[in-house]
Formats: sequence, C-alpha cells, structure tokens
Amino acid sequence: MGLVQLEEQSWKTLRLCRLHQFQRVSKLFTTLKTLDHFNYKPESYATFQQRYVLNFQHWGGANATAPILVYLGAESPLGGDLSGIGFLHDNAAPFKALCVYIEHRYYGKSIPFRSRKEAFKNASTLGYFNSAQAIADYADIIMHIKKKLHAMSSPVIVIGGSYGGMLASWFRLKYPHVALGALASSAPILYFNNITPSGAYYSIVSKDFREASETCYQTIRKSWSEIDKIASKHHGLSTLSKKFKTCEPLTSSSEFKNYLDTMYTGAAQYDRPPSYPVNEVCRGIDGSKKQDILSKIFDGVVAYYGNRTCYLNQPTSDSETDQGWRWQTCSEMVMPIGVGENTMFQPDPFDLDSFIKNCKGYYGVPARPHWITSYYGGQDIKLILQRFGSNIIFSNGLRDPYSSGGVLENLSDSILAVSTVKGSHCLDIQPKRETDPEWLVEQRKTVVKIIKGWMAKYYADLKAFKRQ
Amino acid sequence: MGLVQLEEQSWKTLRLCRLHQFQRVSKLFTTLKTLDHFNYKPESYATFQQRYVLNFQHWGGANATAPILVYLGAESPLGGDLSGIGFLHDNAAPFKALCVYIEHRYYGKSIPFRSRKEAFKNASTLGYFNSAQAIADYADIIMHIKKKLHAMSSPVIVIGGSYGGMLASWFRLKYPHVALGALASSAPILYFNNITPSGAYYSIVSKDFREASETCYQTIRKSWSEIDKIASKHHGLSTLSKKFKTCEPLTSSSEFKNYLDTMYTGAAQYDRPPSYPVNEVCRGIDGSKKQDILSKIFDGVVAYYGNRTCYLNQPTSDSETDQGWRWQTCSEMVMPIGVGENTMFQPDPFDLDSFIKNCKGYYGVPARPHWITSYYGGQDIKLILQRFGSNIIFSNGLRDPYSSGGVLENLSDSILAVSTVKGSHCLDIQPKRETDPEWLVEQRKTVVKIIKGWMAKYYADLKAFKRQ
Repeated sequence: MGLVQLEEQSWKTLRLCRLHQFQRVSKLFTTLKTLDHFNYKPESYATFQQRYVLNFQHWGGANATAPILVYLGAESPLGGDLSGIGFLHDNAAPFKALCVYIEHRYYGKSIPFRSRKEAFKNASTLGYFNSAQAIADYADIIMHIKKKLHAMSSPVIVIGGSYGGMLASWFRLKYPHVALGALASSAPILYFNNITPSGAYYSIVSKDFREASETCYQTIRKSWSEIDKIASKHHGLSTLSKKFKTCEPLTSSSEFKNYLDTMYTGAAQYDRPPSYPVNEVCRGIDGSKKQDILSKIFDGVVAYYGNRTCYLNQPTSDSETDQGWRWQTCSEMVMPIGVGENTMFQPDPFDLDSFIKNCKGYYGVPARPHWITSYYGGQDIKLILQRFGSNIIFSNGLRDPYSSGGVLENLSDSILAVSTVKGSHCLDIQPKRETDPEWLVEQRKTVVKIIKGWMAKYYADLKAFKRQ
Repeated sequence: MGLVQLEEQSWKTLRLCRLHQFQRVSKLFTTLKTLDHFNYKPESYATFQQRYVLNFQHWGGANATAPILVYLGAESPLGGDLSGIGFLHDNAAPFKALCVYIEHRYYGKSIPFRSRKEAFKNASTLGYFNSAQAIADYADIIMHIKKKLHAMSSPVIVIGGSYGGMLASWFRLKYPHVALGALASSAPILYFNNITPSGAYYSIVSKDFREASETCYQTIRKSWSEIDKIASKHHGLSTLSKKFKTCEPLTSSSEFKNYLDTMYTGAAQYDRPPSYPVNEVCRGIDGSKKQDILSKIFDGVVAYYGNRTCYLNQPTSDSETDQGWRWQTCSEMVMPIGVGENTMFQPDPFDLDSFIKNCKGYYGVPARPHWITSYYGGQDIKLILQRFGSNIIFSNGLRDPYSSGGVLENLSDSILAVSTVKGSHCLDIQPKRETDPEWLVEQRKTVVKIIKGWMAKYYADLKAFKRQ
C-alpha cells in the first residue's frame, strides 16, 4: 500500500479530472530515456523525459514477488488511458498487483527534442519515433522500476489495446526476459504486408450493419451514388450541406463521403453495449419518416451524434493522435486498408504506391511497408509460433473491423485467442460496467484465468529455480 | 544443383586461395542494405553493399522445400570463414542444403559510407555498427534470398561461432519467423553484465594448464614475479628482450606480459586436437633443459610458435578484426573479463569505470554495458527460456575459456546444451578432419541429429498447415 519514492525521480501527484481512490494514489514519474537504442552516434545518446505512472494501492510488494501489470501506452497521451484502461484498475486488487502505465514516446509529455514543435519538425527529428524504439523504452523502464523496487522476481504482464495491443504482443516476443506474458487486446498484427486481405476491415463494417438491419445496410449501400448524383449537379454541394446541416459548407463530395465513412466505421469499431452505435445509426435510418435515401441517412447521422446545431465537419484541430499516427502509418505502420467489392461502401482499393508517394511528399522519407513483418513476423504465424514463444492472449471482438487483422485462433497451448462474437474494439480492457453483458464478463474471466495460470506456473518455476 | 542467377544482383565467381569442388560452385552476391533499420531519419535510408555467398551444389531445391544453412558472419571478413566453417560444407550433402554465408556489416566488403576509412572515421559513422543492426541485415537478406528462390517454406538454420554464435542464438530468439533454429557454437552470451563471474575466463585458462601439467602450471604461475623482478632492474627490459628473442626491444614489462597472456589464452581457447597447444606449451616448459623459470617459459614460447627468427612482438598492423571488435566491445559488446585470485596469472580485476572512460576517450561516446542483457536477456536464462522459445543448440568445448559464459545446461526440450569436456573454441563447427577424436565426432553427430529432429517436426507441421 505504501508509496515508494523512487530515487533520482521527480514525481508529483497525478491530477486527473475524476479522482477516485485508485487514482488518488497514482504517482507520476519521469525518467530519462535514450533517444536511439539501436545506434551509437553521439546524437543517439540524447535523452528525453518519459512519463509513467505507478499505483501501489493493491500491490503485495517485492517480498511477496507480487505481480506487476504494465499498460503499454499507444498513440495518445497517457492521461486518457488511466481512466480508460479498466483491466489494470479492475484487476489490481485480485492480483495484488502494482499497476504501471507508461507513455509512448512522442505523445503527451514524453517528447524528445524539448518541445512537440521541434520533435515534429521533420523526418530528422521524427526518425526516432517507431515501435522498436518504443518497446525498447518500455523494457528499460520496466527493468528500472523492478530494480528500484527490488522486485526483480515479480512477474510482469504487459497490456495494450489496438496499436498498444500490437506492442504488447511484440513486447512479449522480443523481451520475454522482461515480461512473463502479454494481453494484446484488438491487436491487428496481421494487417500488414497483405497477410490480411486489404478489404477485410470494410467487409466487417458492412457485415456489422447488415446483421443489425438489412434495410439499413441497403440504404447506406445505395446512398453513395445518390450523393454523387446530387454533388455533380449545379449547387449540389450546397444542397448536401443544407440537407446534412454541415458545420461548414462542403467543399467536395469525397470530403462528405469521408465524414460518413468515419461515422460508419466508428460505429462498427466501437459497437459496444449497452447502446450499440450500429443499432443507433440503423434505428435512425430505418425509423426515418422520410422517403428519400439521403434524408434517411441524415436521420442516421442525427441518431448517432444526437441533436446538434451542426454536423459532420465542425472544425477541429489535429489531435496529438492524428499528428503522431500520421507519421507512424507513413513510416512504419503501413496498414493497407482499402474497400473491396461487395460491401456497403463504394470500392476504393488501397494503392500502396500512391500511399508511399503521398507520405514521401509529406515527410520527405519513404515508408518501409515490409518492415513490421520483417521485424515481428506475421506470415504463417501459426506455423511459426506453435513451436516458439508463449504467454500471449490475443483478445478480439468480432464486430470490430480490426479483428480481421487479429489472431483469432489459438496458436499454441499458451498463445491464445479469446474472441467474442459480439465484442468491439478494445472492449475487454475497458472498465467493467454494471450493464456488461454475460459474454463480456465471461471473456474477461477467461483472460484473468489464463493469466493466473501463467503466474502459477511461474511461481512454481521460481521456487524450483531458487532451490537449485 | 543448378546455379540460380538472382535478379538484380551482381555476382561473380568467388576466388578463394584453395578452390575445391564445393567452393568452385560458390557464388558471390551483394545486396543493398539499409544503414539503420530502427530509425527513419533521411540519413538512415542510406544504403551499403552487403556481401553474401550462396552455394547450390547440394541443394534439393525450393520445390522440395530443401533446407538452407546460413552462416552468420562475425567480426571478420567473410573470405576466411568459407573455408573455416566446416559445418555447412560437411552437412550440405546430407541435408541437401543450400549454403549461405553472410558478411557482417563493417567487415570485409560490407562497408557503409563507401570506404573503410570513412566508415571507421568516428562514432558518427560507426554508430550503425552493432549487433541489432547486423541481425536485422541478416533477416532481410535471408528473406530476400528465400523470396528470389521461391523457397519461402524452406527451413533455415542459422549457424555461428563465438560472437557469431551469440548472433545465431539471438537471431533465433528475435527472428523465429526467419530461422527455424540456431546452432550457436562457443557463444558466451552470459559473459555480460556480471551474469558470469568476471574471472571465469582466466580460471579456465589456468585449469586447462593445470590439467595438462601441474609443474607447467606452477612454472607459469611463478613466472610473473620473476618477470617483474628482472624488468625492475637496470637494463631489465633489454635482458628480457634478448632472453625471449623479441622482434622489437620491449618497452614495458606489461607489454611483455600481455604477449605471454595472449599466448596462454590462445593456447587454451584453441586447445584442439591433434596437437593440443596447451600440451605443446607445457611440453616446452616441462621439457626444458634449463633450470631458471624464464628460460623454461621461453622454451614454452618456442614450442608454441615453432622455430622463428624472433618472437612475441613482431610488428603487425591492426587487422580488420582488431579495429572492428575494438569498436564493438567499446560500445555494445562490453564483456567484463578480468583476472581474479587463484589462477596462474597475476590478479587484474576488470574495472568497468576505467574501461568506459578509456572507450569514451577513444571514440567520444560512452559504452552501454547493460544493453546486451536489456535487449537479449541472459539473467536467469533458464527461468525465462524454459517456457519461451525453441530450437537453439549451444555447443561448447569446456576447455574453451569462453565456455564459462556459455549455456552449459539444457534450458528446455529444444534449447539444448551440447558440451564436450575436451573441446575448444568453435571446434565443432570447424571442418571435419581424419584425426578428429571420437568425442568430437559424437558431438557433431548429436548436433546434426537434433537439427534433423527440428526439421522433421517442421516438415510435419508444414504438411498439416498446408492441408488446412
């Protein structure tokens, strides 16, 4: 329970919007991290402050070799994750676990080059911003914490969702000496280098809508040509702007279609209980009193966003996630997501060449679209991992379009898939709610049971090991 | 059997001093490799020509998914390895294997920055010279070869000795999707970060001599104070120079002692049949007609080096290995080898601080002595790897002082130690000889049997996998 003040660390009470007991005893630390772990040029030795949070409330302590649950930050500042990552909070007490949350380099307060502006200036400063460097940071920080707490034998479980879930699974594969196991929630590690068909993401979005309502699906499917028809008319964009109460006048039909695309994919990706956004959109569309397709679509928009003064294109500034992820996808995390035939969307195949060209135009350096599978694998993953590695859970909700790039079958006795038919993106690691359906409660129980099994084996191994 | 001409590759017949049938069908290739795999700065995209050699003589071909044996180059130019690495040559026929030899970056012809001079200029050009970059090169090249030969399903076994043996074991751990297994010969992966006691290396050298001859061991043990006594006298160094017929006048007693140290450690490290250099040295010392200790030592020197016009300090220029390995040990490969108490040497503890200081003085950047164990592990290796990873053979000869930092017990069912009591450094992967003793023949048979077992499992897995 006691707070441990780590030497040579600056820390201050973490301020969060909604402090509750758990968060009140979270402490914020920063540590100096090396800019480039894989290079020995003088400038590689530059350091930056990396932020992490420790919560000791439920920890059983180093003497008990009580476990450490580590959330691996993803493409956003840490602040939001602490409240959103329920898995750590909800399991700290039963596991008697120390909870650690580490921020990903180039997000939040973990910015090299003294300022965001400098860090994001160009490829020369962004070049250090990639997954291999990030998980090397995590390895260093976890070892640092374990040493400082004299908890070298405490088992570590790393947890992440989406991109962070990829990092978690890759972390276990690359640093098995640092983490005993990984929970990789909604991690589309196979959505690279054409292992997963390019159109899989949009196929699932469409399937989600079709399963919710055939008429809704058909209405959306027919809407695109309606939009094209109106947009091509004189004052067509103005007509669409008025019809959809857009916040700003539309400047192109593709802009407009992108906004709708974002709504549909967002609804499908986060199609979670109790509200189930896909159902909400479809209730709006199917329940519309209007007869024409675009009026129905607009009623779907209103059903999804609620009553607003305007819709779809309210001006927002680029978020940290927008900025950071743009670089990451343009350099290393090239996920070739396109729209194939037979969906509710207009076909829009992914064009790698033009993607690379655009990225090069933007950042001046070409993407490396094959690197992820070179470094982490993915091709024939079962053939490879059925006899290599251990202790990874790939959890997925099959309504999440990213689940198409996830691991959906057990690869071995301890590299396991835990999927739910009705689940959505990262749902299982979000905080428990009263309204959680039984299948979600069961999924989480399964995950916890598996991790407890890993730990039981580890403690037995440790005992045998120390007797030697 | 046919030679395959890879597209977009320049190749020419490899010229070796002693061409025999195997080498005559070796072909030399080069491929452009990225300078920095873990960074996206513009200069990281610079490329360099990396050299590798393919030998198709015995290959069963891609259609038969016949295996590929890959020698991972270490701290020397490739040329010497091809004749020295018998394991590939001797096993190509029984395995029907394609043999691949890849040169390590910054050695031989695989030099970034257009010239050795430029590449070795300072830490800014040397910074890319490290093990993580090297094994990423290897992963890229192996995948490139497999793609070009349409041999994606051919199992790959990586083989290396000493530093190259470390690379082989680390390669299997980091790139299991590229190599099915690794043979790591005499790989002291535990000689980092004080996992292995600092004095272990010299303890084994001493043990080797003591086992060869107690009187020899005692003579050497007593010789150092004799040297100090004479060296401290007026004209003492001149006396020693004459007594030992040194090629150049000695400039210090420590210089002289270093030469003897090099001879003893070299004899122990490579104490191989049929001559067994430790025995040779001791035969010289024990069989000496002289009574004084240093005359006996000189007879040991003559026995080891043979009749020469002068001994010990003939002027030689820094070899590529000297230059390259100096950087590698001063940046990443910090192996804290010192001399403890109770050996035949004078105690000389390893002083990490002064080592780092010297390296910093030389290259301008500090070493990272903890990085190897951060990235590759090593601490509590059995606890970690008994449930993670597979298919690594750590072969060692226990007379090799580096075996003290090797893996000498099985870590799991397929991470195995194959040691011989009488073996020496990298002996098992050297070419077979008529004079090989039975224990060496058996060691190699054991290694081959294990690898055949991995392959049998893999082919069964592949068959099941393709049926799915």
